Amino acid sequence: MSEYIEHDAGGVSVGVVEKKSFTFAHPPDEMVLESGERLGPVTLAYETYGRLNAARDNAVLICHALSGDSHAAGYYHREDPRPGWWDIMIGPGKGIDTDRYFVICSNIIGSCLGSTGPGSFNPRTGRPYALDFPVITVGDMVAAQRALVDHLGIERLLAVIGGSVGGMQVLEWSVRYPQRVFAAVPLASTCRHSALAIAFNEVSRQAIMADPKWNGGRYEPESRPDLGLAVARMIGHITYLSDEAMRRKFGRRLQNRRDFSFNFDADFQVESYLRHQGHKFVERFDANAFLYITKAADYFDLGLQHGGGSLSQAFTRARARYLVVSFTSDWLYPTYQSREMVKAMKKAGRDVSFCEIEAQWGHDAFLLPNERLTHLLEGFLKSCHDDVC
Amino acid sequence: MSEYIEHDAGGVSVGVVEKKSFTFAHPPDEMVLESGERLGPVTLAYETYGRLNAARDNAVLICHALSGDSHAAGYYHREDPRPGWWDIMIGPGKGIDTDRYFVICSNIIGSCLGSTGPGSFNPRTGRPYALDFPVITVGDMVAAQRALVDHLGIERLLAVIGGSVGGMQVLEWSVRYPQRVFAAVPLASTCRHSALAIAFNEVSRQAIMADPKWNGGRYEPESRPDLGLAVARMIGHITYLSDEAMRRKFGRRLQNRRDFSFNFDADFQVESYLRHQGHKFVERFDANAFLYITKAADYFDLGLQHGGGSLSQAFTRARARYLVVSFTSDWLYPTYQSREMVKAMKKAGRDVSFCEIEAQWGHDAFLLPNERLTHLLEGFLKSCHDDVC
Repeated sequence: MSEYIEHDAGGVSVGVVEKKSFTFAHPPDEMVLESGERLGPVTLAYETYGRLNAARDNAVLICHALSGDSHAAGYYHREDPRPGWWDIMIGPGKGIDTDRYFVICSNIIGSCLGSTGPGSFNPRTGRPYALDFPVITVGDMVAAQRALVDHLGIERLLAVIGGSVGGMQVLEWSVRYPQRVFAAVPLASTCRHSALAIAFNEVSRQAIMADPKWNGGRYEPESRPDLGLAVARMIGHITYLSDEAMRRKFGRRLQNRRDFSFNFDADFQVESYLRHQGHKFVERFDANAFLYITKAADYFDLGLQHGGGSLSQAFTRARARYLVVSFTSDWLYPTYQSREMVKAMKKAGRDVSFCEIEAQWGHDAFLLPNERLTHLLEGFLKSCHDDVC
Repeated sequence: MSEYIEHDAGGVSVGVVEKKSFTFAHPPDEMVLESGERLGPVTLAYETYGRLNAARDNAVLICHALSGDSHAAGYYHREDPRPGWWDIMIGPGKGIDTDRYFVICSNIIGSCLGSTGPGSFNPRTGRPYALDFPVITVGDMVAAQRALVDHLGIERLLAVIGGSVGGMQVLEWSVRYPQRVFAAVPLASTCRHSALAIAFNEVSRQAIMADPKWNGGRYEPESRPDLGLAVARMIGHITYLSDEAMRRKFGRRLQNRRDFSFNFDADFQVESYLRHQGHKFVERFDANAFLYITKAADYFDLGLQHGGGSLSQAFTRARARYLVVSFTSDWLYPTYQSREMVKAMKKAGRDVSFCEIEAQWGHDAFLLPNERLTHLLEGFLKSCHDDVC
């Protein structure tokens, strides 16, 4: 990693970073997935920031959400206009301080941003997997991350941190590999999707599958189901904001004119915003990857998968200390779901801190600058670091 | 109307009813719409239940929601398995008692269930309007209903009652034609859509317009944009239920099997429910009508259109007494929006009763059996009837 340090809006950045990748599970030693299917070889795109100390005990793993990638911080080159997706939190002197911690972030399997997913080359057929890609789970994502952590020679992670679907990975890590995780921080997350969250994902998937260009998942780069994927993304953006957030951000303000168009153009700013988000998304994301990752999120049920239906039973397997954070206006994974999680952790005898942060911006709040969140993470990590290192 | 009386789950029904229609605004005397466009001739499908009294002052107009029709009560024939959509409320001895009141319900213009809409024949071109149909407003819907009320020889309606988009029509009636409305009952409604409600409608419209079979609105009966319309309806159904309603109705229960399918079939009951609702809807509804009605709902802004931006100013035009009802779990038009409405009515000196009903079923609650709602409507109408008749 370059030593070039750049200043951005969030303060000092980790500077120029490089994309790395790690390939494992070469046949015949493929990963055995939760479905029973086999997958290999598997490539993980990842990045690291800061330095692993001699004791190899200062590593923090960041788990990204649905559409995230391994580029969590820094810039790819000096003219790069946009830093990684959580650059406000990760860097020298920031909430997750790269002067202290060795930070790792990898793209989840099933995605399309460098790691193996439905758009990858299927060695058995010589063409992209498409729907021949096996349905993967959050457990499978985490199992792949563990292979990377092994590869980096890290016995125990100081902390695993992530929001939303990234928070599910955090919870899974803590229960699946209890000896490998000292601390776990699920943000704006849940131990299982509500019917409402499943409903939103299902309608999004239906929007993709309704696009004739989806073609049973077998599409060419020049003819992708962009319209369906854009609608799916628009649905997602509704769930990332809240009623109040939308009211503050858009209200009923009109787009570019004072009067109604009396046609089906975007009259309101909120319409224009959603169309923009939808169209922007199709440039960088793959429709099949969206299907696989949302399905994994819907399947995730920590209590069912690790506690025979009991969430507290699942947490008896864990050893990590937890910091659980929810946001008041998050209606995708509302605070009551974090409270259930915390209750089960306590019942299982875990050391857990819980904080509900007052925030207007709905589910998206965990990605936005928030002094309270920064201080919470900073303090929590420091106390873990003091206890371990 | 036949005197045949049928018993159903909701008690005695009005029995066998007949579809009627009324056509007006023949060129050159077309309706002049709020957009400035002209529309004619205009046909309204309607039904009536009970008898208009000699003084012609016992008429109650029912306004239906987005996908409703004029068939609010009774059966079309003796073997008809399903009564009208509000048969639980309308009938002899019911909340809206057809032994006392003459009840009218007409299909809104812009719809596809008997009244003039985008699927109707355009006399100027000799083919269906499609997107040549002018964008209509809630005010236009109400202006058309007024022509029907004139036609029936009714000077003043005892009450106008409706839920959701029907409630918008109720509010519009009371402000647009103050002398023609004695009482007005908006249920689970709003004086204007929030950004969130607009967002849901916009994504639904985008789902329809993304379907290549939509073809700019110009589709043939044998090749309709069913997939897009089904996705739009699924989005709608998410907004009609609440987080809690979905949890109670479906939770994470699986469909037809104990284990995950590990494919993209419907694993969860909630997925299967949404798919079913989507597919059922395309059999009876038209995609263009969906576009027009949702746009009218998004445009509706009582304070802007009748009060120069002030809701209380708009209500100073009204003379009606109001009964406003909201439901605790309605997150499409939450109670706070009804409270704003009530506050503005009071500020304008109107006589208003307000009731928030405890209900689990979200926005849909106004359509479901609810003893509290039945008693409220019964008592309110009786007191109006006593004061007028």
